[in-house]
Amino acid sequence: MRIQDQHYRTIWEKAGSTGTVQVIDQRVLPFELRIAEWKQLEDAATGIRDMQVGGAPLIGSAAAYGMWLGIRELNQASNWPKALDGIAKTLLGTRPTAVNLRHAVEAVLNACSRLATKKELATAALNVARRITEESVEHCRAIGEHGLERICDIYRRKQKPVNILTHCNAGWLACIDFGTATAPMYLAHDEGIPVHVWVDETRPRNQGARLTAFELGQHGVPHTVIADNTGGHLMQLGMVDLVLVGSDRTTRNGDVANKTGTYLKALAAHDNGVPFYVALPSSSIDWSLRNGADIEIEQRNPDEVQFITGHDGQALRKVRLTPEASPAANFAFDVTPARLVTGLITERGICEASEKALTGLFPEWS
Amino acid sequence: MRIQDQHYRTIWEKAGSTGTVQVIDQRVLPFELRIAEWKQLEDAATGIRDMQVGGAPLIGSAAAYGMWLGIRELNQASNWPKALDGIAKTLLGTRPTAVNLRHAVEAVLNACSRLATKKELATAALNVARRITEESVEHCRAIGEHGLERICDIYRRKQKPVNILTHCNAGWLACIDFGTATAPMYLAHDEGIPVHVWVDETRPRNQGARLTAFELGQHGVPHTVIADNTGGHLMQLGMVDLVLVGSDRTTRNGDVANKTGTYLKALAAHDNGVPFYVALPSSSIDWSLRNGADIEIEQRNPDEVQFITGHDGQALRKVRLTPEASPAANFAFDVTPARLVTGLITERGICEASEKALTGLFPEWS
Repeated sequence: MRIQDQHYRTIWEKAGSTGTVQVIDQRVLPFELRIAEWKQLEDAATGIRDMQVGGAPLIGSAAAYGMWLGIRELNQASNWPKALDGIAKTLLGTRPTAVNLRHAVEAVLNACSRLATKKELATAALNVARRITEESVEHCRAIGEHGLERICDIYRRKQKPVNILTHCNAGWLACIDFGTATAPMYLAHDEGIPVHVWVDETRPRNQGARLTAFELGQHGVPHTVIADNTGGHLMQLGMVDLVLVGSDRTTRNGDVANKTGTYLKALAAHDNGVPFYVALPSSSIDWSLRNGADIEIEQRNPDEVQFITGHDGQALRKVRLTPEASPAANFAFDVTPARLVTGLITERGICEASEKALTGLFPEWS
Repeated sequence: MRIQDQHYRTIWEKAGSTGTVQVIDQRVLPFELRIAEWKQLEDAATGIRDMQVGGAPLIGSAAAYGMWLGIRELNQASNWPKALDGIAKTLLGTRPTAVNLRHAVEAVLNACSRLATKKELATAALNVARRITEESVEHCRAIGEHGLERICDIYRRKQKPVNILTHCNAGWLACIDFGTATAPMYLAHDEGIPVHVWVDETRPRNQGARLTAFELGQHGVPHTVIADNTGGHLMQLGMVDLVLVGSDRTTRNGDVANKTGTYLKALAAHDNGVPFYVALPSSSIDWSLRNGADIEIEQRNPDEVQFITGHDGQALRKVRLTPEASPAANFAFDVTPARLVTGLITERGICEASEKALTGLFPEWS
């Protein structure tokens, strides 16, 4: 998507170089566009650990490229299996719960398992990184095409700008391009269908206020940032035509774990007859879980609630928001039950949130 | 209630002085306890305008004391009606939409209408200020007693600490003492009934994180600050026994306008079978409005969403949270429909949220 009228992805091989990966450093967005360069394994590992890059699909690509960079550093005499294992361990330790990271590392290890020379290994790893990256882009684009139909339906009926509410950043900055929940918005905007996006700021980490607002603004999509508390009121007033969010994990029955607060918006949508759609690549469906009750919700550091980082005009600055003596709790996700979900938008199409419909689209999991 | 083990109200006549009012300066809480002194009308007007004091009942007291200070500054030769009118105008201009401010100023004007000397006028104004203040404390205490019964019911059944979720600051800092939604919590805590309060931070103005957390902490009530997004998840997990909030305005049929986001918590409470109570002095019931659709919702400055003030260890500092190019919207309140309210807790008792039940408790308005 566009930043300052130029097309970007979140991760790419640096033009004119061999062995350099570039990524958009998310940590200083939206206040600065900083491109980080990864030349060796350590750069990639640090970048993933310190959250230069975040978002499941992006972490997958980053890890595969990290494997490639690590292999390039090996000397010819290396004991390949042991050396590959060391690189994998370094990367797996950066974000232990990121499932896409594990899948990407395993995909590279598999591709390398019968190869003999460093050159072959490097080529295989690079091919996996490119494949994962392109697949991710293709899935997001397909999600965009399917979601676009729903936006067009509303626009045909309404003949006025379509108001879409989104929560957190299920945008291209968390993917490679297009994003998941944002993909239909970008495609609609690019086709001239007027959309306006209500962007939940998404406390406590403010991914909406920092990332979603930035990427929509840079691509030219009209949007307005709101406190997370506001969406219900907007729906009561008829100011939301569609809620469109991403998903961190979806279970067999269509329950959706997503950033904390998603469930509250689903309730408000249901109470006001507003369609509530979840965009997700099928790679984020956990077919082993029957329903949302099986999902363990991560509790993060309470200081994400107690402190916030913003820009004071000169630099990023972290300030305290709560009394020093007051504890805080930080549940990162919640589960939206399938009964509140109008539809799941996947790369293969849209289906209702149920095991029957999901396995209908993905019969290989039935 | 207690701060640093000493009993405070939010406004009081300075001991050993005549003609000095002291208030807790809310603007620097929770990071500093600063007591402001008002010696003349201008101090009171500035204090109200610049939000040294906030909260409907507190603004009422502050305005009445402001009238008193203004009268004390008049010289003997004044044209009383004109002079009183000037003082009233100064105060009414500070917060034009605050209904308690208008009521307090009018109460002083009425009490003064037939008096002739400056001394009589000052005495009358002081008496009104004291009466408004004591009435407010008494109403909050009565709300506390009624709400306490509900907490006791839950405790008897559960035999474990009662988890109460609250939104915004309906606490004693917005009143004179006890608060509205917090009054039952303080009375329960003081009687040895174990309560724990989930404090919504309440974006965008963070009254929960700044004020409610501070006052509960100083009084010794166990509490945990959470992002506004979190309450639904907690209710799904059975970690909330009771939701208890205040109200800015309640209509005849029991619809409740309160800080934005209250409606979302009411939906979650309803979806999870958690009782949802609203504590309100009857002075905040707008008997002229049939239902919540008649309430016009204030839109505040978007920069309350775009910027936030916190403490960087040395001083309060305002930082930007959103991209410079991204607009924001700031709807201050929302309306929770009566159907989602388990009960209204007033100074006369608890009733269901309906016109019939409300006018049963307040037959003078039937």
